[in-house]
Amino acid sequence: MNELDVIDRLKWRYATKLFDGDKKIPAEIWDKVEESLVLTPSSFGLQPWKFIVITDQAVKDKLLEHSWNQVQVTGCSHLVVLTALKNVDGSDVDKFISDTHAKRGGELISLDPYKGMMNGFLERMTSEQKHAWARNQVYIALGQLMTTAAMLELDACPMEGITPAKYDEILGLENGRYTTVLACPLGYRSEDDKYGELPKVRYGKEDIIEHI
Amino acid sequence: MNELDVIDRLKWRYATKLFDGDKKIPAEIWDKVEESLVLTPSSFGLQPWKFIVITDQAVKDKLLEHSWNQVQVTGCSHLVVLTALKNVDGSDVDKFISDTHAKRGGELISLDPYKGMMNGFLERMTSEQKHAWARNQVYIALGQLMTTAAMLELDACPMEGITPAKYDEILGLENGRYTTVLACPLGYRSEDDKYGELPKVRYGKEDIIEHI
Repeated sequence: MNELDVIDRLKWRYATKLFDGDKKIPAEIWDKVEESLVLTPSSFGLQPWKFIVITDQAVKDKLLEHSWNQVQVTGCSHLVVLTALKNVDGSDVDKFISDTHAKRGGELISLDPYKGMMNGFLERMTSEQKHAWARNQVYIALGQLMTTAAMLELDACPMEGITPAKYDEILGLENGRYTTVLACPLGYRSEDDKYGELPKVRYGKEDIIEHI
Repeated sequence: MNELDVIDRLKWRYATKLFDGDKKIPAEIWDKVEESLVLTPSSFGLQPWKFIVITDQAVKDKLLEHSWNQVQVTGCSHLVVLTALKNVDGSDVDKFISDTHAKRGGELISLDPYKGMMNGFLERMTSEQKHAWARNQVYIALGQLMTTAAMLELDACPMEGITPAKYDEILGLENGRYTTVLACPLGYRSEDDKYGELPKVRYGKEDIIEHI
């Protein structure tokens, strides 16, 4: 890969409005998408998320009306629902510290300062702030997901326009620890999607980048 | 680029704690980073952000104490400060519609439904909700920035741990329309950064991905 490829791919991507319903993402490519989700960076490394990958057509069909009837939800190959922890707490810090110790070895006690810093960070926030923080991390995951998809020549459509409460109901999340934040259908663009041909609308560097 | 490269690069990246202060990102590579920032997707395409690129050492030095004294801020090649609109309003929708028309042509009136939808979306939100929404978009930009950096073999360190009000003061943003959300130093890792050698800590697919 050279640096030109990266920008070319980012120019090639667009928020796909119509997928080719006959084209499914091959398993070995999809596996890369999931690896990328797993590798997403997060604040402190806490990964306050779960990702639900939906290929069951009946479930996608049920979600359509709770997605402003955007047909990407039913026509895509794989629908990813990005969820965030409702309430991050000490148990999440403990789990992360335990995983860090398992992967990196060393003395468990040496992780105490890091653990204390994370717990202190969480304790200074209200429930609402903690959830907003977890949601923010999920937007990083969306960013990495869209960029990775473009690199893999997969089409995607980031979607805020869904009804999270209905998604939670259909996906059985209501009584769990995670709640729906975003959806991202992935697959291959249909040749009939005229949006794929339109010039990209972005402000110029001179408008949005300042140098000091 | 093949799909293996993408995952290899994501595994290679890490939150760099110590940059090689002597290595600067060449202008032609930095240009790609800025192109990637410009190309970042956002909800409705509204791009409610500005990015401040700091190479002036004196300014980086001033920001250090407001960055939990994390030396990445002063040791990096380029420091990007990601800012969000404080209050998205109709003027931002107008500007975006005008740019869409300039780039895509056609009848301006044909964009009225889209304009109405965006204005309706914004009008249903409080000031706090609008700012939270704009901040969320900035996290997408952070995700794309980190992923792109990895593809370009640049090191980066996402940073929530800063004092945004002090950044605003030093960067002269106080009376403007944008406010600091995040910082991201970029450059090249120092060989002395032991974190670069540690195994990555991520939960497994079986922990964070569910299939339906």
